Formats: sequence, C-alpha cells, structure tokens
Amino acid sequence: MDPTLCQTAHQVRLLGRQNHITNTSGLAPGYLQANLLVLPSRHAEDFHNLCLRNPVSCPLLGLTQKGNPHIIYPSTCIKDKDFDLRTDCPKYRVYKDGKYIESRTDLMNLWTDDYVGFLIGCSFSFEDALSDAGLRPRHQATGTIVPMYKTRIPLLASGVFKNGTCIVSMRPYRMEDVERVREITRPFLATHGEPVDWGWDALERLGISDIEKPDFGERQVFEDGEVPVFWACGVTPQMAVESAGDRIEGLVFAHEPAHMLITDFTVKDLETLGKPLYN
Amino acid sequence: MDPTLCQTAHQVRLLGRQNHITNTSGLAPGYLQANLLVLPSRHAEDFHNLCLRNPVSCPLLGLTQKGNPHIIYPSTCIKDKDFDLRTDCPKYRVYKDGKYIESRTDLMNLWTDDYVGFLIGCSFSFEDALSDAGLRPRHQATGTIVPMYKTRIPLLASGVFKNGTCIVSMRPYRMEDVERVREITRPFLATHGEPVDWGWDALERLGISDIEKPDFGERQVFEDGEVPVFWACGVTPQMAVESAGDRIEGLVFAHEPAHMLITDFTVKDLETLGKPLYN
Repeated sequence: MDPTLCQTAHQVRLLGRQNHITNTSGLAPGYLQANLLVLPSRHAEDFHNLCLRNPVSCPLLGLTQKGNPHIIYPSTCIKDKDFDLRTDCPKYRVYKDGKYIESRTDLMNLWTDDYVGFLIGCSFSFEDALSDAGLRPRHQATGTIVPMYKTRIPLLASGVFKNGTCIVSMRPYRMEDVERVREITRPFLATHGEPVDWGWDALERLGISDIEKPDFGERQVFEDGEVPVFWACGVTPQMAVESAGDRIEGLVFAHEPAHMLITDFTVKDLETLGKPLYN
Repeated sequence: MDPTLCQTAHQVRLLGRQNHITNTSGLAPGYLQANLLVLPSRHAEDFHNLCLRNPVSCPLLGLTQKGNPHIIYPSTCIKDKDFDLRTDCPKYRVYKDGKYIESRTDLMNLWTDDYVGFLIGCSFSFEDALSDAGLRPRHQATGTIVPMYKTRIPLLASGVFKNGTCIVSMRPYRMEDVERVREITRPFLATHGEPVDWGWDALERLGISDIEKPDFGERQVFEDGEVPVFWACGVTPQMAVESAGDRIEGLVFAHEPAHMLITDFTVKDLETLGKPLYN
C-alpha cells in the first residue's frame, strides 16, 4: 500500500509494524505524531516529571502501564486492540549508559515486564496546518528529513536527568512570514507549539555553530530572504538520556528521529491537550 | 496581631489588605504562596500560554475572570467571599511599556473591568518542608529577603512575550545536602519544584556575574563548604513583561517580590496541582 494514501492512523501504524515506511512527515494528515521514550520503571517518575517541567520540548501525550506494551493512557491516544509499542514505530534506537548503541526495526527481544513507555508530541503534527496556509515546510517539498540541532537551551533538571539541553527542529521561512508561522503553530501546545526562536541571530543565542550541519536529519536550502525558524523537538528526551549517562540502569529505547509513531489523537484534540482543567 | 501567630491563610490575607505585613516568607505555614501578574485582557491568552510553556518559572495556580477581582478559579485556590485581588497582597508593583514605574499598597484606583489576574506558584511554599528536614533556608534564619538573580535561561516565547529570561531564587546549602534538598522540593511541581541548577560552576551556566549582588532581595552569607542552590522564581513573569515592552498596551501590575499573596491551597493539594489527569 502507498503510505501516502493511508487515511487512518491505524493503517500507518500497521505499515510501521511491517517496516514498510521510514520518514513519517506528511503521512496520516490530521493525526498527531509521537516521539517515543521507553525506560526502566525505576526512572519513570523522574522522566514523567521531566516532561511536566519541560513541556515545550517534551509534551506528554500518553504513557503505558509498567510492562504492558499494548495500552496507552489516555485511551483516546491509541485505540487499537492489537497495538504494540515494541513494533509499531517504523524504527527504534537503543541506548546503554546514556550512549546510542544501535538502531532496530523492533524491540521484541529487548522488552521486559519492567519497562514504561512515554509518547511525546511531535512537530510533524502542525505541518498540515502550515501547508494549508501556503507555508509548506521545505523538507516536505524536497522529500528530505527535517534538520535537528543541539542547542544550549537548558532542559530543567528532574532527578537523574540533569544538565541536559534541548534539541530544535528547523524550517526556513521568509522573515515577513514569521509572525503568521507563529500564529498558526501557537495553538499546538501539545506538539511543541510556536517557535522558540527565529532569525539568523538566533544561531548565537541557541549555540548552533553551523546551520549546514544538523545533528540529526538533513540540511535545507535557504532561498533569498529566508531565515531559520526553530521549534522545540521531541528528540530532546534522547539528549536527556545522554545527560543521565550511567545513572540510568538498563537499556533505554527511543524512536529513530523522523520515524514517528502515529497516534489516534487529531488536531481537534489539541483544544484540550496540554491545557489545565479550569481554562 | 503578630503575623507569625496567624493560623490560616485568610488571617494573613487580611493583614496584607491592611498593609501590616511585608516579607511573607515563613508566614501561614503549610499554605501555598502566590506570585501575582495582572494584565489587560487582550494579552491574557499569550500570558496564559506563557505559563503553560514555562511551568517551572511560571506555574499557574489560578486566575480571575476578566474584570472580577473577587473570585479565583479554581475556587479551592482562594475561598474568601470578601477576597480582593486589588488589596490582599502586602504590596504591588506597576509596569508601563515594560518598565517598572512605582510600587503601591493597593490597586484600587488603577484596576478596570478589562483586567485579568494570574496567581503563580512561589518557592516560599516548600520552605517549611526544608525546615522540617533540618534544612532551614538561610534567609529565614537571618530575617532577610531571599536573593533573586536574572539568568540567561530563556523563557520560551508566547505571543508578545519573547526573548525574556528566567529569574532564580537562591539558598545556600552544603554540597553533600544538595541531593536531599532536591528530593524534598521535587514533589512541589506547582511551586517551582526541584532546583534548576546548583554549585559554584552554575554561576557561569546561568550567567550570574556576582553572587553578592542579587537583582532582587538581599545577599546571603555562605558558610564553609556551602554552595548556591538555585530555584526558578515567580518574579520571572515581571521579566516577561519587560521583554514585551511597549507591545503591551496599558498598565500591568504584579506583587512586590517577597510580598506574596497567601492562597488556601495547602501542601496536600500538590498531589494534584501541576499533574495531568491520567497520572
């Protein structure tokens, strides 16, 4: 099946399970995509608090019960009865002692009853809204992977996770379009929301030394008058894992950047996601 | 009435209304204290999102309806029928075009039907827990105001609020006590939670040039082996107002640093405050 013809999140998850897709940018329009982090239960509370303290880079969409890879809370996040967190991402990364050691197509042989999985919002979720407004992201037009950069924006400490920093994704836009880009992405609070910085002078503030050399993904071409616009990125939890180093006991798993898990949340759910009850 | 003998938040608020108290550190033990920001309704959504995007420095405890200074949502935050946001802080600050212009004992002549008030968590709320563990904050022992410093931790942008940075409060502790201090304050997610940084090398990371010269409050004496421990601070919204400058139309009001509003929330409410529903 051509993945771009998939109408539902469930169909795309099945293609991910069968490893028939890679970069999920643009797939399953209207559905929220998710970053993944899976870690031993003894570190789950620290990571949960890390998400609550850093909701722009780590907006929490849902989590599993300890040891159960089939059910996400809240249940509206993923509705399949045959969902499996260990297979339904197109690709996974494995970390040991805070270091990336390998990528895998599934986690079947590594998962134990002690793991807890967290789904984190992804900026791919607001790309449809940008395209609908005539502001299609460059990497979609060129069929490349969105570039991602390490920054010096601190990730505010939580338990074993300390001295980490945030990752940002980048899309080129003309400076006169930046306010509109901010407005369009602002309501997407649960999927990184509006940009954290923009303009060529943002490079120094963020500590990015070379825009041509992203830390993940692929470099993009800037046209005349365009500036880089930076959003917080859900690869940040993987930097948090690096910052924790050998304070984390056991293996940690994550998605491969740009190879996201598609959720059943839609853009309509954003009206409640990431907002307090009394609003 | 001796303010240190007050048993309830309501009693302390009445003393605030009558301007009989100043620094509220240590008053109304067990009750959560709040920072205040009051701004024109056209900027309320941007500020609300600023709080949601920066919950460590700006943890939202409650807010008013537009124009009504008597009721805070959620209603468990402040229960008085005769509550008045315009009088019940010990002291207020007034900002115009992003600049502090004066301090006042009340806002009676400045309030209009267009204002919205926000209550933000305060680190005074976890000082009782530190004292109970034998880790009494130095400024309480010396009867001084906790020192507060501007940092280069970015405040993540929201609408008119951009390029702001975070304020931190500082308490000296011995390095070997830092992990315990982190553990004790960690559960207080809605009142800044665990420290954002600590140790003498934190000064460079945070961009603090002189520990002897706080931007607000009073310098503290360090004993042998002590290091500075820094928490995010609810004066940060005032820096956000400075960052917005003349993009904010109309006057903005805040509390005078350390002169807090006492809420009816208690430490028991922290189990739910600042946490998502499905946890």
